[in-house]
Amino acid sequence: MIAEARRLAPRFAARAATYDRDGAFPVDDFADLRASGLFGLMVPARLGGAGASFADYAAIAYELARGNGATALIFNMHASVTGALAGVTDELAEALGLPAEALRARDDALRAAAEGRWYAVAMSERGAGSRLSQLTTAYEAVDGGYRIQGAKTFCSGAGHADAYLVAARSAADQSQVSQFLVPAGEGLRVEPTWDALGMRATGSHDLHVDVTVPAGALLGGVEGLALVVAQLAPHWMVASYAAVYVGVARAAVDAAVEHVNERKLGHLPAIRARIGRADAAVAAAHLAVMEAARRVDERPGEAETNRWVWRAKLLAGTTAADVAASMLEAAGTSAMRRGHPLERLYRDARAGSLQPATSDVCADWLGVDALGGDGDSEGSAPRW
Amino acid sequence: MIAEARRLAPRFAARAATYDRDGAFPVDDFADLRASGLFGLMVPARLGGAGASFADYAAIAYELARGNGATALIFNMHASVTGALAGVTDELAEALGLPAEALRARDDALRAAAEGRWYAVAMSERGAGSRLSQLTTAYEAVDGGYRIQGAKTFCSGAGHADAYLVAARSAADQSQVSQFLVPAGEGLRVEPTWDALGMRATGSHDLHVDVTVPAGALLGGVEGLALVVAQLAPHWMVASYAAVYVGVARAAVDAAVEHVNERKLGHLPAIRARIGRADAAVAAAHLAVMEAARRVDERPGEAETNRWVWRAKLLAGTTAADVAASMLEAAGTSAMRRGHPLERLYRDARAGSLQPATSDVCADWLGVDALGGDGDSEGSAPRW
Amino acid sequence: MIAEARRLAPRFAARAATYDRDGAFPVDDFADLRASGLFGLMVPARLGGAGASFADYAAIAYELARGNGATALIFNMHASVTGALAGVTDELAEALGLPAEALRARDDALRAAAEGRWYAVAMSERGAGSRLSQLTTAYEAVDGGYRIQGAKTFCSGAGHADAYLVAARSAADQSQVSQFLVPAGEGLRVEPTWDALGMRATGSHDLHVDVTVPAGALLGGVEGLALVVAQLAPHWMVASYAAVYVGVARAAVDAAVEHVNERKLGHLPAIRARIGRADAAVAAAHLAVMEAARRVDERPGEAETNRWVWRAKLLAGTTAADVAASMLEAAGTSAMRRGHPLERLYRDARAGSLQPATSDVCADWLGVDALGGDGDSEGSAPRW
Amino acid sequence: MIAEARRLAPRFAARAATYDRDGAFPVDDFADLRASGLFGLMVPARLGGAGASFADYAAIAYELARGNGATALIFNMHASVTGALAGVTDELAEALGLPAEALRARDDALRAAAEGRWYAVAMSERGAGSRLSQLTTAYEAVDGGYRIQGAKTFCSGAGHADAYLVAARSAADQSQVSQFLVPAGEGLRVEPTWDALGMRATGSHDLHVDVTVPAGALLGGVEGLALVVAQLAPHWMVASYAAVYVGVARAAVDAAVEHVNERKLGHLPAIRARIGRADAAVAAAHLAVMEAARRVDERPGEAETNRWVWRAKLLAGTTAADVAASMLEAAGTSAMRRGHPLERLYRDARAGSLQPATSDVCADWLGVDALGGDGDSEGSAPRW
Repeated sequence: MIAEARRLAPRFAARAATYDRDGAFPVDDFADLRASGLFGLMVPARLGGAGASFADYAAIAYELARGNGATALIFNMHASVTGALAGVTDELAEALGLPAEALRARDDALRAAAEGRWYAVAMSERGAGSRLSQLTTAYEAVDGGYRIQGAKTFCSGAGHADAYLVAARSAADQSQVSQFLVPAGEGLRVEPTWDALGMRATGSHDLHVDVTVPAGALLGGVEGLALVVAQLAPHWMVASYAAVYVGVARAAVDAAVEHVNERKLGHLPAIRARIGRADAAVAAAHLAVMEAARRVDERPGEAETNRWVWRAKLLAGTTAADVAASMLEAAGTSAMRRGHPLERLYRDARAGSLQPATSDVCADWLGVDALGGDGDSEGSAPRW
Repeated sequence: MIAEARRLAPRFAARAATYDRDGAFPVDDFADLRASGLFGLMVPARLGGAGASFADYAAIAYELARGNGATALIFNMHASVTGALAGVTDELAEALGLPAEALRARDDALRAAAEGRWYAVAMSERGAGSRLSQLTTAYEAVDGGYRIQGAKTFCSGAGHADAYLVAARSAADQSQVSQFLVPAGEGLRVEPTWDALGMRATGSHDLHVDVTVPAGALLGGVEGLALVVAQLAPHWMVASYAAVYVGVARAAVDAAVEHVNERKLGHLPAIRARIGRADAAVAAAHLAVMEAARRVDERPGEAETNRWVWRAKLLAGTTAADVAASMLEAAGTSAMRRGHPLERLYRDARAGSLQPATSDVCADWLGVDALGGDGDSEGSAPRW
Repeated sequence: MIAEARRLAPRFAARAATYDRDGAFPVDDFADLRASGLFGLMVPARLGGAGASFADYAAIAYELARGNGATALIFNMHASVTGALAGVTDELAEALGLPAEALRARDDALRAAAEGRWYAVAMSERGAGSRLSQLTTAYEAVDGGYRIQGAKTFCSGAGHADAYLVAARSAADQSQVSQFLVPAGEGLRVEPTWDALGMRATGSHDLHVDVTVPAGALLGGVEGLALVVAQLAPHWMVASYAAVYVGVARAAVDAAVEHVNERKLGHLPAIRARIGRADAAVAAAHLAVMEAARRVDERPGEAETNRWVWRAKLLAGTTAADVAASMLEAAGTSAMRRGHPLERLYRDARAGSLQPATSDVCADWLGVDALGGDGDSEGSAPRW
Repeated sequence: MIAEARRLAPRFAARAATYDRDGAFPVDDFADLRASGLFGLMVPARLGGAGASFADYAAIAYELARGNGATALIFNMHASVTGALAGVTDELAEALGLPAEALRARDDALRAAAEGRWYAVAMSERGAGSRLSQLTTAYEAVDGGYRIQGAKTFCSGAGHADAYLVAARSAADQSQVSQFLVPAGEGLRVEPTWDALGMRATGSHDLHVDVTVPAGALLGGVEGLALVVAQLAPHWMVASYAAVYVGVARAAVDAAVEHVNERKLGHLPAIRARIGRADAAVAAAHLAVMEAARRVDERPGEAETNRWVWRAKLLAGTTAADVAASMLEAAGTSAMRRGHPLERLYRDARAGSLQPATSDVCADWLGVDALGGDGDSEGSAPRW
């Protein structure tokens, strides 16, 4: 699969300027992803997928992002839905007391992914961000299922996915936050709000939800599981972006090298120093991302694993922004022209530190943790 | 005049998003500048202008840039033409042996500026950058004047100015580089190449020149003066941008403060620390710009003055980029939306270090100088 | 006086390594200062002094620190005592309702300074730092005066000064914090606790106080003035160090230049870039210090003046540490040998950000202020 | 063995302040190392050693450095001698045409190490640094052996080692640089020149050499092998320090955490942010060091391996200095007192970027390499 990702990256790169300019969904990239079977990356082999680990995913996300970070970010959402579903093993399901229908629904959703269906995530809301505890989108039980009403924001790939993971709060019991897999179609309306500095092709528009879904759309078949899943799989909430931004940073170094060599500027010491330092920084951030991913697979949920997840997010975000800025400075004014890879990468890279958990939040969490505190320390950013 | 600049800045700011989005020349801003009399800023009082010093100019450029950096950059070109012309005093003209017609031409050009005519600069060329010694645009004496042929790049305001300062090399004597004031019209063709990351509204397009001008268009009336003027007024080549980028940096701090207060995020210590450090950095860079400007007025051409010019350029460029990046990080994802001031300021600010002399070049020059070397030190960037 | 400071600086520099090595009080430097008349720097002319402004002081502190930062820091304490005393003008004394004896005591203390008496400051305490509101040293009225008991820390020049400014809290009324001028001698015991990374020659030892002073030792002649004075003259609490650390930073650049030239390493671009960037940073921090000082003189107590004081302290501290570290890296391993100026300057420079108000605290204050908050904002560091 | 290193580290830490203060060789640490068998770390099992890989070494050096970086640096020299000797396998010896006696001498030297003999390195010279091609220490063949004459500098552990690896140039053929294992004793004179900012306990004094050694002291038994060995094992020249400096950086984070917790300052957001960012930076640099070490073992000499070696050195040096400076700032003034771990660590950490290859040189090499150049690129630092 990683070979496939490497094959696709240059194709993505060749299309990236156009999608970026228009803020358009990368239709051809997603056709490539579907054809390559990558929609089944996280799907277990018994359901027709590649059964990839989180580390496999991180390696692939890095490669895809070297082609187009925006495409990799949308793909990340699909991977997080399928990865989290696949993470609910039969053993875990039994421990959580999930009903048999929920396991069948899980298998159906995963099998469909392996066959080319893809999922987006509609979790964040204005005001609440991605904090589950603050959501206002509400659902209520109705005859034969649930009615969900609310408004989501930052929904990457909105209007193009086959179904959406929608988080909502029970109107009957405010303490319950549940997740639903809502198929595209009536009841979902895209409001095209995404016109951003960077990562423009993610089309992370607002999604207005007023839809009734059958009971089987409730993930896990039991209400109130959203927070449980978030705590079991925090890497999908925080760290899976990290691989994308390291890929963007590496693409910036590569683009600067190509530009400098074309212009025969490699004899200038200041440029060499910038490229050398950037290369080392990207290489180190990449190691951190892969270390976090390896630990997520081997020791999920451990305190040290979570620390690596935060370190990876922090380092990826700060490195991407710093490296892209320095590479543009190394390349010079001519690389500022729109259509030049560095012009886009500079804008894309800036988003890394801003996506939750932000760099400042990760630094605080790591500091609290190093000092022996916990997530509820006074003044520290809340986690969910 | 500075009060006038402060009055105009919010008007520029209100229009900046639109001009930026379209990469359009800021027509209304320039109408405001004309109406305010600022085209005569550098014109001596005896010719109807405000007779401003370089320090006056720097203070005004800072204020204008707080509104729109791109507008301030175009205005900077007009100021540099009029400022350099005004700098050729009668005494200097006599010392240089300039003919009387040249003084009349100078006065005509300046008087016209005071009356609303404005000038752009067509100096840089692909490959040569802004280095006079590398230009390939050529002129030859023809009956009644000169024919100039070549191609210019990074010509801010191209297609909108009333006349252009064009630098060219004598076809007859390659060692002579001269400057001409070429009126808009036939013989000048704008190729719309400027579609850039930042400072989009400067419209710094390519300008193709194939024009015959009367003898009076030759600035100074004597061939080969371009380098002399550059050496007499290096601040117009290097430092006048600096005030613009400090203005951009201050605008980024102001925009972040407004955004953070609107969202009631001021209680977050990481945000406060970012704003506090940014405020201090911008304030210091501003002092450096004003110190350089003061010295340009009081002790032009002295070694310490030149050092201040380089320091100002270095500090303004690096501060603007760092501050804008940090302010966007302080404000968060919502400030990445196009149309938000910080989204534009982040892109505009990046250009500062890249404009010649780049930050890396300024650092090298300062280092060479501190070590007692000179501009011809081995491996150092050439100055002109 | 500034010429005198420039004359002394190389003498201080020549002795600095020895005092630093031994952590010894710079006896000869202080003999020079006394002989030069600099003890009377802040003393009004009518009392035999130079009547210097705060800006004069800042310029002189910068020059002295280029010779030896530790000597300049001790001198700073004397200047702050005499400067604060001189700042209590007759008009202010009347407004505060100070008794006539207090004015005579003030004049006596200042006249003595002009004649060569010098003062140290014993304010900070373990646990309380320099926060007046947290002091535990106590005084009580006794027959004919006051008895003061407590322990002070970070008392620069302890054991060498002629008298000490001691801040203490009234045992009878905890809300009253007063200051006394306590002559050296019995009742003051130095505990040699100062053996520090940098600024070793300041001898900032602990001072144990158990002394009875006559009533005239109470500054102002009225109890409870300490906080008033601090609020009237915060620059002496925060910003007067700033000039010292900029002097240290400039000394580091100068030492690196000398070292690099001696070793003929000036052709290396990485070294040139380090020196060039350091030069610009130090020059900008110097401007900020002088701007703060100018405003303290012209517009004391204004909000913008206080902001400049914090900016100066923040920029001086961070610049000194960064510059000294980079200059040592430019000079290379041989400059790490003890006795090399850069080895000492690297250690001395580190202290700048740590002295109150620390860089992190200044950044927070500036951020709170920029956001329109005040010193009592939730979570912000308290000011006194 | 790594467990042993972890057991020793706190013992080293407890002694570090004293050795640092006195600039004294860490006698007790070396007694511990001998007793623990760590002198045989790099010795093959067949000769009584632990047969460690380079990655094993790097892991152990990191742990030792968390106790005392200076001790770890001296140990690094012994490890590099034994590691390089062990790296001359029988296969390699045959390929190089080494005589049988040389293999016996190799085995004798290694077996002795396993039994407690330890080696220092006397390579660098004033003016030449560690560049083999510039050495001036000379040897000539004499009856029954070689006479070596010259002066070495930066010889860590000088006066305490059992033997010294001495690099010298053939007087008869300037192109030949050879290495000798010279036993302590007559003919080696220590000049106590090492009195440095940091890493004081390494006792990296000058060593004056005027000694005659038997033929068997010539390593490899063939002249001119020094450069060959350097090219085969560049990691011992460049990267083995890296693990030490990452250990120092981690020790700084640990010391700051302990200090901040003791003083109950962990609620301050600025301190938490500093510790969080430092933790992430150290963790990433550690990964880079371990990745370089793993590749040295698995793919020695490959271009990508060498790049990792440079990245490791660059990241370790810059991270150590930055982290130690920030941790001291987090801890505050009280941590500046001599004897406080952070006071020492701040000084020790500064040496990392300065040891060859310096950070600036590594950045240049990485930049040249990324741009497709080679070590002979114009203006680039020479490698040997």
